Amino acid sequence: MSKAARSLAGGARSRLSKRPTASTAPFKIAVIMTGGTIAKTYDQRKAVLRNADPVVRRLIRSLRLEDTKVSFKELMQKDSLDLNPHDRARIVETVRSKARRNAAVVVIHGTDTLSDTGEALLAAMPAPAVPIVLTGAMVPFVVEGSDGLQNVTEALFACRLLAPGIYAVFHGRALSFPGVVKERVALTFVRSPDAAIPESRS
Amino acid sequence: MSKAARSLAGGARSRLSKRPTASTAPFKIAVIMTGGTIAKTYDQRKAVLRNADPVVRRLIRSLRLEDTKVSFKELMQKDSLDLNPHDRARIVETVRSKARRNAAVVVIHGTDTLSDTGEALLAAMPAPAVPIVLTGAMVPFVVEGSDGLQNVTEALFACRLLAPGIYAVFHGRALSFPGVVKERVALTFVRSPDAAIPESRS
Amino acid sequence: MSKAARSLAGGARSRLSKRPTASTAPFKIAVIMTGGTIAKTYDQRKAVLRNADPVVRRLIRSLRLEDTKVSFKELMQKDSLDLNPHDRARIVETVRSKARRNAAVVVIHGTDTLSDTGEALLAAMPAPAVPIVLTGAMVPFVVEGSDGLQNVTEALFACRLLAPGIYAVFHGRALSFPGVVKERVALTFVRSPDAAIPESRS
Amino acid sequence: MSKAARSLAGGARSRLSKRPTASTAPFKIAVIMTGGTIAKTYDQRKAVLRNADPVVRRLIRSLRLEDTKVSFKELMQKDSLDLNPHDRARIVETVRSKARRNAAVVVIHGTDTLSDTGEALLAAMPAPAVPIVLTGAMVPFVVEGSDGLQNVTEALFACRLLAPGIYAVFHGRALSFPGVVKERVALTFVRSPDAAIPESRS
Repeated sequence: MSKAARSLAGGARSRLSKRPTASTAPFKIAVIMTGGTIAKTYDQRKAVLRNADPVVRRLIRSLRLEDTKVSFKELMQKDSLDLNPHDRARIVETVRSKARRNAAVVVIHGTDTLSDTGEALLAAMPAPAVPIVLTGAMVPFVVEGSDGLQNVTEALFACRLLAPGIYAVFHGRALSFPGVVKERVALTFVRSPDAAIPESRS
Repeated sequence: MSKAARSLAGGARSRLSKRPTASTAPFKIAVIMTGGTIAKTYDQRKAVLRNADPVVRRLIRSLRLEDTKVSFKELMQKDSLDLNPHDRARIVETVRSKARRNAAVVVIHGTDTLSDTGEALLAAMPAPAVPIVLTGAMVPFVVEGSDGLQNVTEALFACRLLAPGIYAVFHGRALSFPGVVKERVALTFVRSPDAAIPESRS
Repeated sequence: MSKAARSLAGGARSRLSKRPTASTAPFKIAVIMTGGTIAKTYDQRKAVLRNADPVVRRLIRSLRLEDTKVSFKELMQKDSLDLNPHDRARIVETVRSKARRNAAVVVIHGTDTLSDTGEALLAAMPAPAVPIVLTGAMVPFVVEGSDGLQNVTEALFACRLLAPGIYAVFHGRALSFPGVVKERVALTFVRSPDAAIPESRS
Repeated sequence: MSKAARSLAGGARSRLSKRPTASTAPFKIAVIMTGGTIAKTYDQRKAVLRNADPVVRRLIRSLRLEDTKVSFKELMQKDSLDLNPHDRARIVETVRSKARRNAAVVVIHGTDTLSDTGEALLAAMPAPAVPIVLTGAMVPFVVEGSDGLQNVTEALFACRLLAPGIYAVFHGRALSFPGVVKERVALTFVRSPDAAIPESRS
């Protein structure tokens, strides 16, 4: 158990035990879908994978989420390499709007420029009121061996435990922006070695 | 966002941003398998589901867990209704032992007496040094529509975010002992309405 | 290539090449569901597998069957050990009725008494006008590793290629009644060593 | 039941009932893999589907095939649009060779030029001694909703029931060459309306 983890103890314990037992209002999560590898499906006619269907909605509906209300916003269906500044601005504005009326926001995103969107969100919302979690997959959900179900399961679960902030959730870990980058050898997300640890946030 | 959740912010933010970038030691999780519905497989000869195979090991190996080292201990293969006091004592002792040399412990357990084991763990370890997470499933992992993959994915992820304590993780939620019970209508786990909120731990 | 197989050549070749190219009428298959292991689903509340849902309908709808029209008759939902003489008589009468208005009939059946039903069908319909195929599974369709999808895929395909007769289709083979029995060691169906080869049918 | 189907009766009945009960020699099927959509897997690094892994071997090993011995020959891993005349000649020669020592041959092939290979096989082997079955899929085996498992299950099963000849097996049907073409609207295989019914073979 690291020192850092131990320092979390007070907070988490408080939260979990203080949560009112007979709460009637479910935990509200807004899921914003932008496309990405996770949502690619197979086009039989063109024999390619492409972003066409709301596959993440089906993925999430296959989960059992007690005391949780998930709403979906299909913002765009793009490979994240194709996102332009206008698209990214729309994502930021939609997250800002959803963060006002939800307990957490999950952004389904392609992995290639997920870091850019994370940094843009942090620039626009340096102190968000709720956890904002970016996730996606290295392998499409509809392909055998996809990491998509795992990542989305973790992202939704993280919404309940993480402090407000901007995060990438992939492969068993939550990493907080700034400084989260795609590691193109291991094909996962890591903290950039160059990222200064933001002392003011610790 | 509830007040309680907001109070978590400082702790979680600290932990996540302070974690050393170039850590070489992976996060160690001990998984203790006791059987339960999640691990039942189909016996073609007897035409019944029974606890016979190390199915949870395969489930976990199908996940991508970065910077994590999972070790397995196959303690017993029992329906939790068949656990006797000696079995439960063995579980408690094994958890205690594994908690000394790991960053977290996950106990795979049948749902019918999971609460009893959680309370026994809390009685034996009122202030554990690491998160101890009990999980399992309402439907065997090998059966279509099982909640087992989701619960175990969440339990492993929770190990990184939860404060030290004893928890049940099911269906998108982490619930801390004491006072966690199986809800036999909705078939999930809930905080018992009768459970006193332990003020001393908040 | 065995002599027997070679003797099939003329007939099969005829059928396949003579089938009218521009046929508008699809090949009609009636599927009669009686229950059996293949159709067992998991009851979370009772923690048992039981015959309750029309799972075979979903299995068949997941297949792509060109130029084929499948109709379903949910006759009963029983473990085949629980079939009584009245049930078996109903199966025989339903098969007889469906055989009149379809190009083939598939009976989804439990494996334990499938042989009895096959022999009863042969006794009642010694010279059926169409192929009548009994199939099922050793492992429920909803359980990982089930042979149910394979057996039903084969049974439906066999409807197009088999001569009129009563058959069991399991594990890559079509076996014609009489003399087909469950082999309880290998858990498949075989020709009984005691079965006289019916010379009159060859 | 069509007249053509009924004409099959004698042959099929003979074969099935004459097969020796205590046969010790399994039915030998050679599977020749050439690539094709069915065998495409996802390359995480390049984010494309490509022919790289022996996925069909795994598919077939997941089936229960009693009294059958399947051997595999990985001839090439190509999209069938990339097959050149030399490749096609190699396929024909390999089929010819395997047909000598097996009871049937299955060729796993891309769908776009499967017809060309079928016609080339027929030209080279107008009267093959065993059934030669071409199959593949419109959707890769590793992609959800693939027709690959179904088509291969049917192709292997067809090996036992079809007369010697060259066939395409897809979506519940066996179609004999010549005159089998890919139908690019419905995405399946059909008898070409222009194909003369080969009277000499009926």
